[in-house]
Amino acid sequence: MTHDTRGMMEPIKVGLLGFGTVGSGTFNVLRRNQEEISRRAGRGIEITRVAVRNPAKAQQVLGDALGTVALTSDFAAVVDDPSLDIIAEMIGGTDIARELVLRAIHNGKHVVTANKALLAVHGTEIFEAARVKGVMVAFEAAVAGGIPIIKALREGLTANRIQYIAGIINGTTNFILSEMRERGLDFATALADAQRLGYAEADPTFDVEGIDAAHKATIMAAIAFGVPVQFERAYVEGITRLDALDIRYAEELGYRIKLLGIARRTTQGIELRVHPTLIPAKRLIANVQGAMNAVLVYGDAVGATLYYGKGAGAEPTASAVVADLVDVTRLHTADPNNRVPHLAFQPDRLATTPILPIDEVTSSYYLRLRVADQTGVLADITRILAALGISIDALLQKESEVVDASQAGETDIILITHETLEKNINTAISRIEALSTVRSGVTRLRMEALN
Amino acid sequence: MTHDTRGMMEPIKVGLLGFGTVGSGTFNVLRRNQEEISRRAGRGIEITRVAVRNPAKAQQVLGDALGTVALTSDFAAVVDDPSLDIIAEMIGGTDIARELVLRAIHNGKHVVTANKALLAVHGTEIFEAARVKGVMVAFEAAVAGGIPIIKALREGLTANRIQYIAGIINGTTNFILSEMRERGLDFATALADAQRLGYAEADPTFDVEGIDAAHKATIMAAIAFGVPVQFERAYVEGITRLDALDIRYAEELGYRIKLLGIARRTTQGIELRVHPTLIPAKRLIANVQGAMNAVLVYGDAVGATLYYGKGAGAEPTASAVVADLVDVTRLHTADPNNRVPHLAFQPDRLATTPILPIDEVTSSYYLRLRVADQTGVLADITRILAALGISIDALLQKESEVVDASQAGETDIILITHETLEKNINTAISRIEALSTVRSGVTRLRMEALN
Repeated sequence: MTHDTRGMMEPIKVGLLGFGTVGSGTFNVLRRNQEEISRRAGRGIEITRVAVRNPAKAQQVLGDALGTVALTSDFAAVVDDPSLDIIAEMIGGTDIARELVLRAIHNGKHVVTANKALLAVHGTEIFEAARVKGVMVAFEAAVAGGIPIIKALREGLTANRIQYIAGIINGTTNFILSEMRERGLDFATALADAQRLGYAEADPTFDVEGIDAAHKATIMAAIAFGVPVQFERAYVEGITRLDALDIRYAEELGYRIKLLGIARRTTQGIELRVHPTLIPAKRLIANVQGAMNAVLVYGDAVGATLYYGKGAGAEPTASAVVADLVDVTRLHTADPNNRVPHLAFQPDRLATTPILPIDEVTSSYYLRLRVADQTGVLADITRILAALGISIDALLQKESEVVDASQAGETDIILITHETLEKNINTAISRIEALSTVRSGVTRLRMEALN
Repeated sequence: MTHDTRGMMEPIKVGLLGFGTVGSGTFNVLRRNQEEISRRAGRGIEITRVAVRNPAKAQQVLGDALGTVALTSDFAAVVDDPSLDIIAEMIGGTDIARELVLRAIHNGKHVVTANKALLAVHGTEIFEAARVKGVMVAFEAAVAGGIPIIKALREGLTANRIQYIAGIINGTTNFILSEMRERGLDFATALADAQRLGYAEADPTFDVEGIDAAHKATIMAAIAFGVPVQFERAYVEGITRLDALDIRYAEELGYRIKLLGIARRTTQGIELRVHPTLIPAKRLIANVQGAMNAVLVYGDAVGATLYYGKGAGAEPTASAVVADLVDVTRLHTADPNNRVPHLAFQPDRLATTPILPIDEVTSSYYLRLRVADQTGVLADITRILAALGISIDALLQKESEVVDASQAGETDIILITHETLEKNINTAISRIEALSTVRSGVTRLRMEALN
């Protein structure tokens, strides 16, 4: 550890675990901008050891920087190296990463990580271990890549009672949704395009099923509301079943469909959910296109604020990792009790506010269904909704695209409801689907006004 | 000073100078959210003394909180009060505010201020005094109100070599420009509307002449590029001479006109300028409407990031002031050498990179002029531009709005040039205006692609 030799301003020493996209990006940014970074941090920041599964491959990436770094395939050796002040975990996953991070903390090292899954699932254990050892775990890169949203939430908006967060926090799905809308593609085609262009992985499950966004929303909810990370309570719905037709109808009604990570405070508890969401097309966040990320945060004092940028990629993510390295360099000599708390609130002052089950969430809804083209159908539907206290905000009737002769004389009905509890809309949908004049299941999408 | 009694977690004590919009907003936010704020900060934050010119008036605002606060009209007494840890300067202006801030620093107190003029003009003196005394001067509220842009630039983007900043950082002018565009108003009418609605002051000079935006751009440039604050070198041009006609023509060409504060790094030096600017309508920042603020920051690692929110008003500004109070509370026990430097870079590592005079700035330009409707005119103009190495990107010819018979047979020509030095465009304009076929002065506006 070098932090008792400050007078000499020896560089702070970092061990890197993993040398993939983010690891090598971090190495490159730190090296390219080292003069500027040391002018900011007050001392140099050097990656002196890198653990990587295949050192031979990493040697090529390092090029002429090879001489400055000790490469190894022994991850534990880096975590245990007494010459290192900070361990930057860039492996991903929740098993080996968890072990190595806990071991680094146990060894008294500060940790910087981009691993949202690790923190969303094992955050409570990791932050407690860090508290006990008086070290920092910094994770700006875990949410929205290079956008300093963790810092904004945790430090920039401390005056506020946060009301809600709504974020486009997965670039893959935003790219796919943008392609579906702009080019009229269906999900499978847009996904294949995204894969071809490198915006989606070969196995896109984590992205398209909303899991990645839910990890990030879980972390933001904890910081915004002062509750522990509780990924297991998040409601997660991806975009795989989204129909191009609904994107078109939404557009006609003045909405865009985005995969949002939402965390909202209500009088009953906290809503924590990821799902495709209709939002008014005129909102700034509705115009976030392609693989870009944006997070809307509403605080009682500041009102709505928005943070926009690249949410993934080697250098945008490295931007956040290096910012954390600078933060740790600046703060590691400070009294641990007076540093910024990991989850924004002091660990002994977290709240027990419950995360609400999805049934208890309040939303307005977009409903689409196919009905027989005969009188009385609409009256039946509105009666079902009225009986459950659900009022209708807008209604659109569309001649159905006839696929075969049996569908002649059918109409698409699109309804937009006012706010109601999710369990009420579910009951309504069951009843509507039981009507003999209703010829399809009811497609249901949630909406957010984002006022 | 209470910071050696941390074990008891006694509240940190704040003295407020001024109790106008921002001062009373700060008091109200701190009081309303005190429980949540102390859970974040690790201890309470209390305003115990307020200096105000008219204590009787302040008493009414305080209402039932009156008992917790000592009111005085003696500002120096608050600055000298040994029971206070932090002085929050909410007076504004550069004379008395400067004296009181320096006196507070001299007394070993940390300072929080929303005063952009003070820092843009006297920042070097103030930050040096703070360095000598080992105290913090926090000023998040000085730029873009509640948007945590100072924190983003100073801490969130430390990995980056910042290339440019372009900000809508004055709500009054953005409101006026939005009204001019949306409702086709001229400047005087839109200004009168803004004054009636409370978006512009009775004397709007600081806002509409761009001075307020230049103060903020000056501060951001210092933080982004590691140079001292140099307001006197900023180029400042407001919106008072902006013609509604140019807003319309810009729209036709796919651009919006915004008053931007621009700070850009070039190989020659730093550009620091405020002026009406044409930007592509499809950029997210072009869609920032009304009195909202937004700052676009381009870093070499992160790419483009955008920060959006309310740039003024009691509570949005208070949001930033209170965030600074929390920051100071968290960091005031840390070794002063290891805190975040006031201007992002260590004070002994600031650069001497020059601020370029406006003649040396590179930009593309929008030019509008009225010409006689005869052959050869356009050839003369393009010859003048070509001789100066200025190439044309787009050209629009418009039948002139004929005001009187003498203008019959005249045409408006709108040119968009590629990038060139400002001094070249000035030479071109002089030569064009000397042509006998040119019947008006040349209206010249700068453009930014914001890629």
